[in-house]
Amino acid sequence: MSELQAYIDERKELNLQELIELLKIPSISTDESLGGEVKRCAERMSELMAEAGLETEVFETDGHPIVYGERLEAPGAPTVLVYGHYDVQPPDPVELWRNGPFEPTEEDGYLVARGATDDKGQFYALIKGIQASREVNGKLPCNIKVLCEGEEEVGSPNLDPFIRREQDRLACDIVFISDCSQFAIDMPAITYGLKGLCYLEVFVDGPSKDLHSGSFGGSVANPANVLACMMAACQGPDGKIAIPGFYDDVRPLEDWEREMMAELPFDEEEFRASVGAVKLFGEAGYTTLERKGARPTLDINGIVSGYTGEGAKTVLPATASCKFSMRLVPDQDPGKITTLVSDFLNQVAPDTVKVEVRPHHGASPVIVSRDGAAVKAAEKALETGFGRRPVFVREGGSIPVVNTFQEALGVESLLIGLGLPDDNLHAPNEHFRIKDYHRGAVTMAAFLEEYGKTKT
Amino acid sequence: MSELQAYIDERKELNLQELIELLKIPSISTDESLGGEVKRCAERMSELMAEAGLETEVFETDGHPIVYGERLEAPGAPTVLVYGHYDVQPPDPVELWRNGPFEPTEEDGYLVARGATDDKGQFYALIKGIQASREVNGKLPCNIKVLCEGEEEVGSPNLDPFIRREQDRLACDIVFISDCSQFAIDMPAITYGLKGLCYLEVFVDGPSKDLHSGSFGGSVANPANVLACMMAACQGPDGKIAIPGFYDDVRPLEDWEREMMAELPFDEEEFRASVGAVKLFGEAGYTTLERKGARPTLDINGIVSGYTGEGAKTVLPATASCKFSMRLVPDQDPGKITTLVSDFLNQVAPDTVKVEVRPHHGASPVIVSRDGAAVKAAEKALETGFGRRPVFVREGGSIPVVNTFQEALGVESLLIGLGLPDDNLHAPNEHFRIKDYHRGAVTMAAFLEEYGKTKT
Repeated sequence: MSELQAYIDERKELNLQELIELLKIPSISTDESLGGEVKRCAERMSELMAEAGLETEVFETDGHPIVYGERLEAPGAPTVLVYGHYDVQPPDPVELWRNGPFEPTEEDGYLVARGATDDKGQFYALIKGIQASREVNGKLPCNIKVLCEGEEEVGSPNLDPFIRREQDRLACDIVFISDCSQFAIDMPAITYGLKGLCYLEVFVDGPSKDLHSGSFGGSVANPANVLACMMAACQGPDGKIAIPGFYDDVRPLEDWEREMMAELPFDEEEFRASVGAVKLFGEAGYTTLERKGARPTLDINGIVSGYTGEGAKTVLPATASCKFSMRLVPDQDPGKITTLVSDFLNQVAPDTVKVEVRPHHGASPVIVSRDGAAVKAAEKALETGFGRRPVFVREGGSIPVVNTFQEALGVESLLIGLGLPDDNLHAPNEHFRIKDYHRGAVTMAAFLEEYGKTKT
Repeated sequence: MSELQAYIDERKELNLQELIELLKIPSISTDESLGGEVKRCAERMSELMAEAGLETEVFETDGHPIVYGERLEAPGAPTVLVYGHYDVQPPDPVELWRNGPFEPTEEDGYLVARGATDDKGQFYALIKGIQASREVNGKLPCNIKVLCEGEEEVGSPNLDPFIRREQDRLACDIVFISDCSQFAIDMPAITYGLKGLCYLEVFVDGPSKDLHSGSFGGSVANPANVLACMMAACQGPDGKIAIPGFYDDVRPLEDWEREMMAELPFDEEEFRASVGAVKLFGEAGYTTLERKGARPTLDINGIVSGYTGEGAKTVLPATASCKFSMRLVPDQDPGKITTLVSDFLNQVAPDTVKVEVRPHHGASPVIVSRDGAAVKAAEKALETGFGRRPVFVREGGSIPVVNTFQEALGVESLLIGLGLPDDNLHAPNEHFRIKDYHRGAVTMAAFLEEYGKTKT
């Protein structure tokens, strides 16, 4: 491995510059006006993957393009499908960024930019690992397929059909994904559980236009008042979700999981300070780690009604709306939860307003096996890359494609987070530790070497 | 009166053009960036008042200027102080206007523009009435003082001290205000009751930055979830405000008032259709007219948190805030209600977030006497102007200055609404019926003639 390490060390500056170029492209998939930038990012990613030694192809979809690449030169060795995404979240609120979200800057060993960790940085580290492995060894020890999409942040509407259509092309033994985080700094992790997602938006319509709250207040239902009551009805003060039937399909945490979580080095006070809350809060009867990784949640993601500008305006708003999402755990089903929650909201809403519940996107929760050659190889590879054996964790985020790979290709996914838990994912000043970018590349190369020893 | 009527009829087009020019000036007092436009409006108003025959003066304040004018040429006759405001509400949401809010357009006999009815149109009708009276009679039958401020829509922070300081200058027998509405189309009204106001804004702070709702959901209180619960706690499903002590000082409606309100021609279904709500709603045990005019209310005026743009963003927001206001009735006190509501919100808020309640502005509720020479003169004048005797009503809006006039000058106010209840006050496509603009001028002139007969 020392030759590999030396190879990557030599190319650190070059590898970093390539990532910085990718981060300068505002590939915000949810913003329709930026379609051209998303496409430009796909093309640049394809070029870089080709330079890394892959045969690449850009597939157009009804939405943003899918970049695919492969190098199949290890007969008898397993095939690894690397998945990632080149699209990013919107940067709002932009005014809270220390620098422009698409002007990557180095700060104290971190690279700060939208997409730095989610997922351009983590994904591109793997590409650099594949390239290093090939160039150091002369050829790759595993067969490699790479799938990089541009719609992860909007629920991957076109990836699912693509995977199902291209089952033969994508056939593999394992999927390798770096789109989550280590357990803590210098503490690599293998994520064996992911939450699912059910993201909804509710619209409450009252009067047909904004009214003067003095002249009309008290005579018609105020949609903002109504919406507050509806959202309040979804939860209890004990942090339990109050929607009947919501917990019916929740698989209880097993004793060994609770024991393992309790043994992880996690300082509640340090965590509280890092998020800046005056006090932690969550579902009664569970620890913070259990709540974060293994219990379902309900969060308002955005709410708006009426006048939100400077000063005061005495308006009775015509409409109010709320984006909110539930993180699901096995064996909750996003479709069933969508119906349950929509029915509940319609039921608690008074008949003095019009209510519409619109689903955005969903994902099934997942638990992956902790046995098998790929997991063993990943454990060793992380030890090589990070100098420490990984811990096993469950994550609150969703990676819906993991379910699709299981269903369409019949394979499990290795979830190897290279980021850190406080990388400001989806928030201002998102960052990625530069050291871990390079260690990620080493880990990928080491994984291919180790996993390549497996006979298929 | 026929000479007066003819005089105003001749000048209809001219009077309308002058109003249109005033409406083109975006004198939005709450928008600090438009300070220059507010000042320009004050200066133009002063010029027009001078052209109408008044000696005018513009008084600078710590905020926007106050325009004052007077003509004292009726010794032995009473003195009338006309009050109005030249500032307007913000036009948001701008995209719902059929034309630009500051590009006045005529539509089906209405003049559509921000400020058309509130209050440039109503106020300027009175100026045109004063001018007509003077020019037709050779001199004014009453002594006239006119006070026009530029901060009514932001709670008149500088008017109160001005009135108290200028007690001698402003001394009068009655205040005449047109800043409300007729009871219905072609049904003039004298408003004898006004609600008060208590406008607050509550800020809920959770984590120090926006967090990923997957990675962090369930581990910290979500400020938007908390705010929804806090606002929901303020009211019951029966439309009653659930804040303890809120109703303590509410003066019950008297039997004669309830009888009089019940006799007013008010079609609930027509009203419902006009506001476009699927169903009317309000405090249990009261009619719609009672709720609108004489019962306290609580309305969210604006609420915002998290991501409110296009598409979906899985964010756990750092902050949430809500502007809301309560309309008060005699004998509720805005200061006492502020304390009551702030205490309540702090009490229902969990200790997992930081809560701040910030008062915007307030006003005391008012009931004015229905007897006396001025009211009698106004009844006759409205009959002259509108061809029909006025009804007596209570209004949901607040005109805080009425209290100040009572306290500082010891006089009551005549509230003569020239607008209509569905003038889209504070909403897109605000309008003022052009016919009523001219009838308002006739009414003012007739009032001066009638009231001038009173000996002081």
